[in-house]
Amino acid sequence: MIIDCHGHYTTAPRALEIFRERQLASPDDPISDPSIDDEELRRSVEGAQLKLQKERGTDRTIFSPRASSMAHHLGNAATSRRWAQVCNDLIHRVCQIYPDNFVGVCQLPQSPGISPANCVAELERCVTELGFIGCNLNPDPSGGYWTDPPLTDRWWYPLYEKMEELKVPAMIHVSSSCNPNFHATGAHYLNADTTAFMQLLTSELFRDFPTLKFVLPHGGGAVPYHWGRYRGLAQDMKRPPLAELLLNNVYFDTCVYHLAGIELLTKVIPVGNILFASEMVGAVRGIDPETGHHFDDTKRYIDALTWLSDEDRKNIFEDNARKVYPRMD
Amino acid sequence: MIIDCHGHYTTAPRALEIFRERQLASPDDPISDPSIDDEELRRSVEGAQLKLQKERGTDRTIFSPRASSMAHHLGNAATSRRWAQVCNDLIHRVCQIYPDNFVGVCQLPQSPGISPANCVAELERCVTELGFIGCNLNPDPSGGYWTDPPLTDRWWYPLYEKMEELKVPAMIHVSSSCNPNFHATGAHYLNADTTAFMQLLTSELFRDFPTLKFVLPHGGGAVPYHWGRYRGLAQDMKRPPLAELLLNNVYFDTCVYHLAGIELLTKVIPVGNILFASEMVGAVRGIDPETGHHFDDTKRYIDALTWLSDEDRKNIFEDNARKVYPRMD
Repeated sequence: MIIDCHGHYTTAPRALEIFRERQLASPDDPISDPSIDDEELRRSVEGAQLKLQKERGTDRTIFSPRASSMAHHLGNAATSRRWAQVCNDLIHRVCQIYPDNFVGVCQLPQSPGISPANCVAELERCVTELGFIGCNLNPDPSGGYWTDPPLTDRWWYPLYEKMEELKVPAMIHVSSSCNPNFHATGAHYLNADTTAFMQLLTSELFRDFPTLKFVLPHGGGAVPYHWGRYRGLAQDMKRPPLAELLLNNVYFDTCVYHLAGIELLTKVIPVGNILFASEMVGAVRGIDPETGHHFDDTKRYIDALTWLSDEDRKNIFEDNARKVYPRMD
Repeated sequence: MIIDCHGHYTTAPRALEIFRERQLASPDDPISDPSIDDEELRRSVEGAQLKLQKERGTDRTIFSPRASSMAHHLGNAATSRRWAQVCNDLIHRVCQIYPDNFVGVCQLPQSPGISPANCVAELERCVTELGFIGCNLNPDPSGGYWTDPPLTDRWWYPLYEKMEELKVPAMIHVSSSCNPNFHATGAHYLNADTTAFMQLLTSELFRDFPTLKFVLPHGGGAVPYHWGRYRGLAQDMKRPPLAELLLNNVYFDTCVYHLAGIELLTKVIPVGNILFASEMVGAVRGIDPETGHHFDDTKRYIDALTWLSDEDRKNIFEDNARKVYPRMD
């Protein structure tokens, strides 16, 4: 089986967007849930994620609400809660219609300056009532101004306690940027992955939470390309080697959209820490004129690597995901 | 000749630091220049940058004040101006003592919220009076909150006009971070490189300034590792191919501290856009236990690449630097 650990519902029916627009326009008014029937849900994925699964030969997507639409910097704690619930409920319905193809990961009701303890109830609801297997954790709810504490601060501990208890990992994933310096998918996303890794490298977080697991999306931002820099920084700081310090808890996905990048990733990061992912339908939708295939058809790059054993491939495509997301089974 | 395009004066005598401490403690009082004699300057580089040049077989370093000490977020426009002058004067003295080994690049007197037009006089002084050949441009004078406009905004144009007139490039290089989310050398530096590239990708800056040249340090942050993503994003946005859009103006240094990273860099970025650099003595000072050599001895990685021709090597080690920094000759 081939499990894609990183897919967002980027093709949700327009009614979801209209709900959000109305909600943000009148944050204090009650607004009815978006009315979307099952047929619309089917149509929204059958020509997109499901079609691409079939074409590319993948089987199951770990599926979450659209990352750029989380926009935790908009509205307030109450609008964020309702917005997370509505988005997560929709993911749940898609997963119920296609239980073999999709398994849910939830959006959290974060807001800048609001304690992550506020996310615990929605995480618990999604995991225990909706059967979700993880969450997306936004390390910068301000949307590009980075005003909340680092992920390693005790500020985040109530959420981590619940994650450990429920045995669910988080993908560390920012949302859209309201800072004109940061293009969302071309800068803010990758910067957040890099930033989170360095926060973890300089902390004792995994001493406090030995079973907590994080997935760094987009191939870990700049981290594998600068693996020597990180090994050297850790050594200069008298930290343990990275494998010992972080690699029982931190995993990298394969959303890197060219062969040379995937080659690097699999050369420097141990195979046991790499999870197959494509983020389709996502940030890059076109066909690479150099290969004739979609940039985000990342399975092709992994298939092209000559140095992986069959066991390595099974780890990257399936077994590592089952290890990081134990509730999948 | 082997030219290292990225070296900071990280070993300046302690008197410089004391000057800065006094300056920031009493920003409105007149403070005399730090008293440092030539013997102290010699000692500060002979056991460090000069020794490493000899050991590693490099010849000349494009030398600038310590990046992390620029700290444009501290003090005010007046303290930033004086601090830049003092730091640049010291670089000039080192370059006069060792004219074969060092050539100067200046720190700019930036301050958050202050027009970059304020930097023009110091740039002109350094280039026309001190013989400097470039500048370091901080894309985030706020030190990690990114409150100034993107580099592609007309806000920065007065500086770019002077750079074009003087025929000097800028290395885009942030300073220290006062945002607890961002470790300076492990996150903020790389994020800034990535951020700047995406700003340039989405702009028409080089239509307005066709001869403006930028060097992205630290191997371009996350950019080469995600070269497929950037090619795909540009294509989705109907932008020209990256080579046409950016590669007449944007260059990458080789401050990537492991062989696999340098391999990637030289596979995806055209040789004509790569400038040798090590940033010694800099962010990572230790010896890599996997190789027995300094992490930042980047010449070894380039020497190890089998696919480069002699001409490629000469471009990376020397000719590209002469092209980007035409005032060197």
